[in-house]
Amino acid sequence: MRHTIAVLLENKPGALTRVTSMFARRGYNIESLAVGPTERHDVSRITLRVDAEEHSLEQIEKQMHKLVNVLRVQELVPGEAIERELALLKVSAPPSARAELMALGEVFGAKIADLGPDSIVFELVGSAEDVDSFEELVRPHGLQELVRTGRIGLARARSGSGRSRPKVLV
Amino acid sequence: MRHTIAVLLENKPGALTRVTSMFARRGYNIESLAVGPTERHDVSRITLRVDAEEHSLEQIEKQMHKLVNVLRVQELVPGEAIERELALLKVSAPPSARAELMALGEVFGAKIADLGPDSIVFELVGSAEDVDSFEELVRPHGLQELVRTGRIGLARARSGSGRSRPKVLV
Repeated sequence: MRHTIAVLLENKPGALTRVTSMFARRGYNIESLAVGPTERHDVSRITLRVDAEEHSLEQIEKQMHKLVNVLRVQELVPGEAIERELALLKVSAPPSARAELMALGEVFGAKIADLGPDSIVFELVGSAEDVDSFEELVRPHGLQELVRTGRIGLARARSGSGRSRPKVLV
Repeated sequence: MRHTIAVLLENKPGALTRVTSMFARRGYNIESLAVGPTERHDVSRITLRVDAEEHSLEQIEKQMHKLVNVLRVQELVPGEAIERELALLKVSAPPSARAELMALGEVFGAKIADLGPDSIVFELVGSAEDVDSFEELVRPHGLQELVRTGRIGLARARSGSGRSRPKVLV
């Protein structure tokens, strides 16, 4: 089963490697990972997606929390978190295919980031499933390049209810 | 000087760690990193941002290319590549501040991903500089949480001219 995990860690050289190498040592493949700055300048946030059984995941998360520089580990539970992903897709687009591609883009709310004589670069933000669907639709036109950030996520703003907080694991 | 580097690598456990640990060993801090699937199911793409001198960077890149599973290393040169970043920002927003925050969001083309009684979650796509500016503007309202994907990038669609290809390093 796939899980999305958010890790807050001190912004130090080697901190990211300690987290990823724990997965590597155990033979887990990280499907996507995004790390970037947070609201605190000395803290980074990793959001990663991994395929693991529930019990293996708990072990990994406990181990992760013991690592130097790791401050918090949290699972983002689908439906209780806002999850988004950004993708850039460069698609073959001779003038004859342009209108059809632009119409597909419009359905998904994709922006045109660049337009060349033979190709279009789409910028798409959505759930991972939205990105998958759009990718599938444009692939027959010739998908030249695809870059995805991997999903990032936050607890919902409606956290007043108390029900919608993400599960803090360790 | 900050550089954005795109690395294509085989989608194998440990491949990501080998790349990040090379930076860690040399004491370089990776400012942001995004890794996700590409147009080929067996290949992942890392886009990372690092602060390094030109000559150190060349060394790192040569070393990186020798790593198992690494297929291509490319620097994304500003202006010659499309670079985008996605950020989610949860900002304190009592009803009295809501209108002002929404107006700020509109200026930056930020979408409202969630709205609660006391906070707003904005979804913003743009250059890293756009995200920085928006962050600075909403910070006085109370920035509760910020997640950024780190930038991803692609060569422009206008590559027919030959001038606009990113620099292939190794």
